[in-house]
Amino acid sequence: MTSTASLTLHPDRLFPPDPGVREIARRLYAAVRDLPIISPHGHVPPQWLADDTPFGDPTSLLISPDHYVFRLLHAEGVPLEAVGAGGSPLDEAGARQAWRIFCEHWRDFRGTPVRYWMESELVDIFGVTERPSAESADRIYDQIAERLASPEFRPRALMDRFDIQFLATTDDPADDLRHHERLASDPSFTHRVVPTFRPDRYLEPARADFPDLMAALGKAADIDTGAYAGYLAALADRRRYFKEHGAVSSDHSHTDVVTLSLDGAEAERIYAAALRGEASEAEATAFRRHMLVEMARMATEDGLVMTLHPGVYRDHDTSSSRRFGPDTGNDIPVAMEFTRGLQPLLDRFGDVEGFHLVLFTIDETVYSRELAPLAGWYPAVYVGVPWWFIDAPEAIRRFRGAVTETAGFYRTSGFIDDTRAFCSIPARHDMSRRLDSAYLAQLVAEHRLGEDEALETVVDLVTSIPKQVFKL
Amino acid sequence: MTSTASLTLHPDRLFPPDPGVREIARRLYAAVRDLPIISPHGHVPPQWLADDTPFGDPTSLLISPDHYVFRLLHAEGVPLEAVGAGGSPLDEAGARQAWRIFCEHWRDFRGTPVRYWMESELVDIFGVTERPSAESADRIYDQIAERLASPEFRPRALMDRFDIQFLATTDDPADDLRHHERLASDPSFTHRVVPTFRPDRYLEPARADFPDLMAALGKAADIDTGAYAGYLAALADRRRYFKEHGAVSSDHSHTDVVTLSLDGAEAERIYAAALRGEASEAEATAFRRHMLVEMARMATEDGLVMTLHPGVYRDHDTSSSRRFGPDTGNDIPVAMEFTRGLQPLLDRFGDVEGFHLVLFTIDETVYSRELAPLAGWYPAVYVGVPWWFIDAPEAIRRFRGAVTETAGFYRTSGFIDDTRAFCSIPARHDMSRRLDSAYLAQLVAEHRLGEDEALETVVDLVTSIPKQVFKL
Amino acid sequence: MTSTASLTLHPDRLFPPDPGVREIARRLYAAVRDLPIISPHGHVPPQWLADDTPFGDPTSLLISPDHYVFRLLHAEGVPLEAVGAGGSPLDEAGARQAWRIFCEHWRDFRGTPVRYWMESELVDIFGVTERPSAESADRIYDQIAERLASPEFRPRALMDRFDIQFLATTDDPADDLRHHERLASDPSFTHRVVPTFRPDRYLEPARADFPDLMAALGKAADIDTGAYAGYLAALADRRRYFKEHGAVSSDHSHTDVVTLSLDGAEAERIYAAALRGEASEAEATAFRRHMLVEMARMATEDGLVMTLHPGVYRDHDTSSSRRFGPDTGNDIPVAMEFTRGLQPLLDRFGDVEGFHLVLFTIDETVYSRELAPLAGWYPAVYVGVPWWFIDAPEAIRRFRGAVTETAGFYRTSGFIDDTRAFCSIPARHDMSRRLDSAYLAQLVAEHRLGEDEALETVVDLVTSIPKQVFKL
Repeated sequence: MTSTASLTLHPDRLFPPDPGVREIARRLYAAVRDLPIISPHGHVPPQWLADDTPFGDPTSLLISPDHYVFRLLHAEGVPLEAVGAGGSPLDEAGARQAWRIFCEHWRDFRGTPVRYWMESELVDIFGVTERPSAESADRIYDQIAERLASPEFRPRALMDRFDIQFLATTDDPADDLRHHERLASDPSFTHRVVPTFRPDRYLEPARADFPDLMAALGKAADIDTGAYAGYLAALADRRRYFKEHGAVSSDHSHTDVVTLSLDGAEAERIYAAALRGEASEAEATAFRRHMLVEMARMATEDGLVMTLHPGVYRDHDTSSSRRFGPDTGNDIPVAMEFTRGLQPLLDRFGDVEGFHLVLFTIDETVYSRELAPLAGWYPAVYVGVPWWFIDAPEAIRRFRGAVTETAGFYRTSGFIDDTRAFCSIPARHDMSRRLDSAYLAQLVAEHRLGEDEALETVVDLVTSIPKQVFKL
Repeated sequence: MTSTASLTLHPDRLFPPDPGVREIARRLYAAVRDLPIISPHGHVPPQWLADDTPFGDPTSLLISPDHYVFRLLHAEGVPLEAVGAGGSPLDEAGARQAWRIFCEHWRDFRGTPVRYWMESELVDIFGVTERPSAESADRIYDQIAERLASPEFRPRALMDRFDIQFLATTDDPADDLRHHERLASDPSFTHRVVPTFRPDRYLEPARADFPDLMAALGKAADIDTGAYAGYLAALADRRRYFKEHGAVSSDHSHTDVVTLSLDGAEAERIYAAALRGEASEAEATAFRRHMLVEMARMATEDGLVMTLHPGVYRDHDTSSSRRFGPDTGNDIPVAMEFTRGLQPLLDRFGDVEGFHLVLFTIDETVYSRELAPLAGWYPAVYVGVPWWFIDAPEAIRRFRGAVTETAGFYRTSGFIDDTRAFCSIPARHDMSRRLDSAYLAQLVAEHRLGEDEALETVVDLVTSIPKQVFKL
Repeated sequence: MTSTASLTLHPDRLFPPDPGVREIARRLYAAVRDLPIISPHGHVPPQWLADDTPFGDPTSLLISPDHYVFRLLHAEGVPLEAVGAGGSPLDEAGARQAWRIFCEHWRDFRGTPVRYWMESELVDIFGVTERPSAESADRIYDQIAERLASPEFRPRALMDRFDIQFLATTDDPADDLRHHERLASDPSFTHRVVPTFRPDRYLEPARADFPDLMAALGKAADIDTGAYAGYLAALADRRRYFKEHGAVSSDHSHTDVVTLSLDGAEAERIYAAALRGEASEAEATAFRRHMLVEMARMATEDGLVMTLHPGVYRDHDTSSSRRFGPDTGNDIPVAMEFTRGLQPLLDRFGDVEGFHLVLFTIDETVYSRELAPLAGWYPAVYVGVPWWFIDAPEAIRRFRGAVTETAGFYRTSGFIDDTRAFCSIPARHDMSRRLDSAYLAQLVAEHRLGEDEALETVVDLVTSIPKQVFKL
């Protein structure tokens, strides 16, 4: 029955059904629909853009690298290897078969943002006109594959078409940033693509590979990391290197955001023990929490914006993770606490001019209870938009509903797509613009805001706000 | 003023007020309104159906056994004994007086689901046409009492009228299931009524009566439970017995869902200590957590679906509980954690084909943060619909809003009424169908879903989904 | 662009946009719009009313004392001293400059209740007709200043105009309540203004000034507080004194609501140690938790209603707090737990006739999980309306949505403004009336409630409910 259904994008999607409110939302959205995209945090590989290599088949572009897509397939009994996830490359027959599996499971994505984004991508980018299904799968596959072979669908051409003005990638501190250098030195490439300093594993002495990481860090910085002072110097040096290559922020994702400051001797001692593989779990945790404060301290010196993405139990399904590696769909959120945890850090740096700390969460309970109150006091703090599991329409509405009344709009981060799914970037930003237009339209319809103010706000949310928060 | 008000059921109740969305909701609901009821978990006593004894008076049917009803009366100062709750039977005058009390407190139930269900029952089942009040109480009492005396209002006749296709009861592992046997062997009874294996107290060595329970378990299974191995064998045997009598699931309700696996010797040791009444609290807790994993292991072998209903502080008001027994209205929810707690269990069994684990919660915060992410990865996990304190319209909307975007519709359990209030079953399922129709209508109105897809989904939610999740 | 915009109040503000629902909301609101204000808990200084001194300039009335206003300004980089907050008085030029700063930041308050209340105050009380902005700031300042100089804008005249029938202040147990006495003995003052017993710091032996506080308490009660028995007697005496001066409640705001009962000897021992400055942190905490139970015990004897306002990390930004004192905008909420914490208290007193315990929270997660279930069982417990960070339109809607289905309307507290911003009182109560009208209108529109019942309920919420809960 559904196999021959057509696929179209309704111009009013995500707008409130009430005709009066919808009319306001349309007017607000019209003002932002075509503005360029600013993407201050995400996971697009810079090499794609540097090399401008054509994308492969539909599966390796749209399914295999995207844990949003394959995790729900996994729940429905599809093995990861069948869709090429987690480093299990597929041949052409396998890729086509994976695409069929995805289309057969189209039903399972109803009501999810994956469904919404994918629909946008299929129609807007690839001109698909029929709904995915077992019956239509091959035709859609062929259509996308054909497009991907043409020059207009190479990464740089899509970057133009998507009108991405600014794009931040996420990078290892020891990375030489050669792809960013190539992009920056290429006069034909006019977009701003910058790295993000992501030092998580270099701050966690409990890792078995910590000594190796320290060696790599030392090598990258050309500084001896054999003792704590050298380690700090090497981190500061790599931050400088990143900043020289355009970086505007460092990003941090540990389990919690508890912070503390060790005294120098204690930090030295734990660092030395960690290099010998002898730091206890408690010491390693204390050191990591101390280093988060050190990162903030460095941020007050070098000006990099600091973003926190905590609250995830990584590799929950250990047998799957062992087989397919990290970031393959089995990370699960946990409850978060910010008020007490961040107090030591904020007490030192929360009022320091120029320090920007953007707090993201997957635990929605902290929005009204902790994040909005923190952002409504500390000049340093901004509330990050919903992330990962909650970057979806109803969750985003809940976010605005929970944060705005305490922190307003101007203490929030602006939209962050945080994605490795390159083709979903326009759909994600468009979704956010629609939802913010709808939220503001509701305020206007309830006579809480003038429409002229709503209009200014919805434009600020995609222009001046991200630029101010991320110092662009 | 309100005493002479009429009581009617509006055909559009619970639908969104917006005319356009309401129209869609009506169409969706029309497709499911008259479908049979599948009730995979609840608390109706099987003896009622086996004996088909006429129900007594209105109070003993609708008030005395239903802690949803009498807990709010208690808060308003009505002693439990005045409404026959907690094993304090009433004579006819007392029952009539209790009904009057309830009707006088009709106001206190405004906005609650008790009000909604009771209204449905009064009108739909008993033909009541006036609103409960001090003035109308006696007339309504007489009308219900008259109906209850007629054959069409005996349990089996109501079961036919309610069109309950499948009904699971909740039963003690040592129960001989004689009532289920009588029903199964009665050719005149065409509904499927099955037991559910509910072993909570047999898994909690901290209980003072644990040795007696072990003796009863051993006797029921005809297996010596004097040591841990016999205990495990007896539990497995009773699960088999339940399954032979139609059971499809085991149900578990402990305070938390922390799991762990003890090694065999340690489990043996604690079990032996518990039989001697010498297990420490920590040992007893560890054993219970270990046994939850053992229950999952057995489920992977015998195929019973496993459902978890955790997160309740039982018997919070100890003086009341001592007097009126358990389940008399003073159980209070507590915050829950699933991600870390269930990791050991899921790491072992979350990917085992055929294992089904349905997770219920009264702490809403875990829906978007933990349950939907878990169900969106593990093939074993399904998100149970809202339970107990949150099985009400707005809470159910919040549930769909929190779960769907990560887990879709097909990783949820289908509606569970979980009730001992037999006459409320149709109203509860009808409420759920209306709310799901309304939720899907909203997705259609926002152009996130085709109406044909919404229609398929709303039907699946009351047919194929519960059948698949509970292996019916 | 926005500088010349006009400022008006739409008669339908905060009502649902759907025309049908809005029409119902209008009818409900019309019944309560002009009813007198009952304010059972707040922070207006009684001296203002006793002295009836004219208010000063616009800044010292509307900005400097209101941490809701200046905390968001602080987040935007405005130093507290620039707006006269935290005991840094401004001269006329400074006050005018502070008002300009506020008007320039009008944008930052979009979507917040500060914006909503201030707009109401500016228009309704001061007749302002233009939107605050850099350009309009001085004109608005002059207009308000002019009004404040006239007799109709003195505190008592405003009290008449606001139609505040009952107003509770918040007072120190050692206060002599002389301002309340002056008001009570003044035949020309016809409003009921009563104190509230707020003993927090007298219950916290960890404070460095605890011995001094005990001396002050003993002096106020004329009872020797050198030992625990005298301390208890002095507290009971001051409660009596407050009650004689009209107090209806005691208010308590500690970090958590964990309760326990020490035996007498242990309480004596810790008290003695605390007087010597030798109580450990654990002892001090236990003592405070014990004293919360003692306060409940006294309430069962003297009949004062007990209100709890827990869950705030006070003085989070220590350098700011050290400089500007407490209550200057940097208190941040933390997660709360009531079910386990209050069990000892409720187990003893939850069923005691006449004991009223009103539970407030800033952690919204406890509404459906803990507070509504507790209020739906214990006759003593009422759910307080949203407080502080969540006393805003969308949060209040979430509160009703989370609480009503379990506890109905009649187990909630009625509206509490809890404010020190005198001029915001009418706007706050009006906001609540609009939101409750809108919530009830939605129930009517969904056919869950008759409009006659909704009408009775919305009136009860501002009349009989606060009177019953606070024993007025």
